[in-house]
Amino acid sequence: MSNYQSIVEKNKETYLQELIDLLKFPSISADPAYKVDVMSCAQFVSDKMNALGLDKVEIISTKGYPVVYGEKIIDPSKPTILAYGHYDVQPADPIELWTSPPFEPVIKDGKIFARGSADDKGQFYMHFKALEILLSENKLNCNVKCIIEGEEEIGSEHLEEFVNTYKDKLKADCIVISDTSMISNEHPSITTGLRGLAYMEVEVTGPNRDLHSGVYGGAVGNPINTLCKMIASLQDENGTITIPHFYDKILEVSAEERAAMSKAPFDMTEYKKHLDIDEVFGEKEYSVLERVSIRPTLDVNGIWGGYIGEGAKTVLPSKAFAKISMRLVPNQDYNEISKLFEAHFKSIAPKYVKVKVTPHHGGEPAVTPTESNAYKAAEKAVEITYGKTPIPLRTGGSIPIVTMFKRVLGIDTVLLGFGLDTDAIHSPNEHYHVWNYLKGIETLCCFYEEMGR
Amino acid sequence: MSNYQSIVEKNKETYLQELIDLLKFPSISADPAYKVDVMSCAQFVSDKMNALGLDKVEIISTKGYPVVYGEKIIDPSKPTILAYGHYDVQPADPIELWTSPPFEPVIKDGKIFARGSADDKGQFYMHFKALEILLSENKLNCNVKCIIEGEEEIGSEHLEEFVNTYKDKLKADCIVISDTSMISNEHPSITTGLRGLAYMEVEVTGPNRDLHSGVYGGAVGNPINTLCKMIASLQDENGTITIPHFYDKILEVSAEERAAMSKAPFDMTEYKKHLDIDEVFGEKEYSVLERVSIRPTLDVNGIWGGYIGEGAKTVLPSKAFAKISMRLVPNQDYNEISKLFEAHFKSIAPKYVKVKVTPHHGGEPAVTPTESNAYKAAEKAVEITYGKTPIPLRTGGSIPIVTMFKRVLGIDTVLLGFGLDTDAIHSPNEHYHVWNYLKGIETLCCFYEEMGR
Repeated sequence: MSNYQSIVEKNKETYLQELIDLLKFPSISADPAYKVDVMSCAQFVSDKMNALGLDKVEIISTKGYPVVYGEKIIDPSKPTILAYGHYDVQPADPIELWTSPPFEPVIKDGKIFARGSADDKGQFYMHFKALEILLSENKLNCNVKCIIEGEEEIGSEHLEEFVNTYKDKLKADCIVISDTSMISNEHPSITTGLRGLAYMEVEVTGPNRDLHSGVYGGAVGNPINTLCKMIASLQDENGTITIPHFYDKILEVSAEERAAMSKAPFDMTEYKKHLDIDEVFGEKEYSVLERVSIRPTLDVNGIWGGYIGEGAKTVLPSKAFAKISMRLVPNQDYNEISKLFEAHFKSIAPKYVKVKVTPHHGGEPAVTPTESNAYKAAEKAVEITYGKTPIPLRTGGSIPIVTMFKRVLGIDTVLLGFGLDTDAIHSPNEHYHVWNYLKGIETLCCFYEEMGR
Repeated sequence: MSNYQSIVEKNKETYLQELIDLLKFPSISADPAYKVDVMSCAQFVSDKMNALGLDKVEIISTKGYPVVYGEKIIDPSKPTILAYGHYDVQPADPIELWTSPPFEPVIKDGKIFARGSADDKGQFYMHFKALEILLSENKLNCNVKCIIEGEEEIGSEHLEEFVNTYKDKLKADCIVISDTSMISNEHPSITTGLRGLAYMEVEVTGPNRDLHSGVYGGAVGNPINTLCKMIASLQDENGTITIPHFYDKILEVSAEERAAMSKAPFDMTEYKKHLDIDEVFGEKEYSVLERVSIRPTLDVNGIWGGYIGEGAKTVLPSKAFAKISMRLVPNQDYNEISKLFEAHFKSIAPKYVKVKVTPHHGGEPAVTPTESNAYKAAEKAVEITYGKTPIPLRTGGSIPIVTMFKRVLGIDTVLLGFGLDTDAIHSPNEHYHVWNYLKGIETLCCFYEEMGR
């Protein structure tokens, strides 16, 4: 057993208890009702930074929720690593599907169940514990800066302004983020590409008030039927998106890269069984792993309108709504895609309805380099603790800030995450495996050590 | 001023106050939370029957909400009229759009605002007041039986069983129902046809749990996108329904009848302005009045799925739901249409989803005769009080019990309603004009008097 491994083993109860305390904050940034909880969570994070031995710890205000900052400068001539994470979490709905309350963490079958356990509290907190170990063992041989923000789940709305303001303070050689998954614990991987995101909210209005469907049905355009028709027309049967110019700027992935990707293990039977589906969906000319990583998508994330209570109500409603998001790939620009969507969606609206389109936050797709020192250190660290060279992998989620960091600070990111795709992040019963949490702490010790060599 | 008119004028404050008391009960049959209120409302109706002088008043149990019965048998050799109404009301959602609380009736601009004011409390209560006048004036010259049920808004689920059980008790020469509208107070009309209804609830399931749309989007069928595609395919651009055999049994309306209908006044500009729409919708080969009366329809009455809270959540949901209803015309059978819908809806589901279809209540379309004594008495009564011969009119709503009464009891119905299409029934701010309420009482006095001649 390595030194780091035995330290982690010895202290694991404390590490778990601290994470449980962190997970108790319902720090839901999307819902203003939780404002106080988000702020208390920021305070908790700052206290923990102080406790582990970081300097200049500060809760830095933004126009939204604050960023918690802390640093340890060992030697200015040594490399500096900027670690990023977020203390805010997704809403917990649908709450009734949770088997235990989302903000009362429980450990069951080797997993910590709580909203935010994997995304991202359990992951950024591994850095805190790794740095604590390195400092107490006198092994920290590089400079470290930490920023833990509170608006990731609402699109990091004020982070760019923050980064711009504190450009000097944030100077670093590389950025490390633990907010992604590995293929499996047997097949460790490092994320090297992330899709971008354009997220739209649409409102379709028919008549100026809810009507009796018997009295008006057949002659007055129903906004729900109409919204369904409009959404249906956005994709063909193959899943191909019909918005004009949607695919224009996409960078083709080379045959070599596709061949490398095709080596990642994938078991179709397991995949379908795990999700309880009879068939997968999407573009026939791409594999499942390609569909969720190098191809853009269009998913309705929410829809509502009319009577949704118990029983039957014969209403022809005035309005229908949907939240529609598109995952983007290099080099799609989310602002441009948002505009293309808006123009197209309005153009397909029949004259008997009025349409409003509101873009939510978006994010650019990103590809991270595999030749950097940081990538190599991450690779080495995983080799040490997992005993296997990690597979470089492009995945489907979005961390919009990766491109922003590159653009504003000129710094590349390494995405060294320890989650699993089955962690149910953004879903009921989100969880993080205790094994992965502890293995992550150990691996990050090695990573920071490698960076200081 | 006629005798009836002056009696109504003299007592109008009392008549309005009693209606207001009746409207205070939130007797929402669709929502089990209001069970006690529905039962209290039945008691109130029964008390009022006793007060007005009916005999054998009884709250008769069914497997659902009870039917309130009362009668006045003057002379068994005279005609017997069975008056039907319902004391239950639609749910009040969306509650936030009401300008005054739905169960705190207020009179404003000559209208009584409250849920149920027009549908149907304000209308059946006119019969109570008319009978009270006739009895006190010693003018009742026919036999009267009243049944006021509590499940009309949930499809009169147990009424057929009730009617079967009490066949003898309910023997009558005609049925009169005030639960419909007139074209306008200047163009009085009597409804001679009603559309039927098939009401379905559908559930589309994709993956077995909510997923992160970034991790799975593009390869896992999204149940909302899929539901939208399925709903979109149920109608073509002209509004024509694509369910196979849907139109097979429809009885063509004769050119003569269509010509007669086309004489009803209709102002397209006013219609569009009133609803704030730029264009109407539907089958080009039929007029607006035809589309809402002699043609079947398919409207989504409610839809929901995924994240519908504030902000953005990138979920690929497990399930999506919709409530879909079809208005039917003679001789479409709602059971058959429900089955056609279910079979078709399941057949169009792609393999990556599972579909559940649950039929709610339905009702047969009905056409009521214009040659009956009852129709002639109604026509005469309207001529007396409105000074104009009423136009016989087929309309869009459904009163499924009309066909049931004909089938089980063999009795025809006359639909003598006093509402207006603008009363916002089933919508926020439902109201009933005071003028119509009082004119209705007066007209019904004349109707019963005519029936006794």
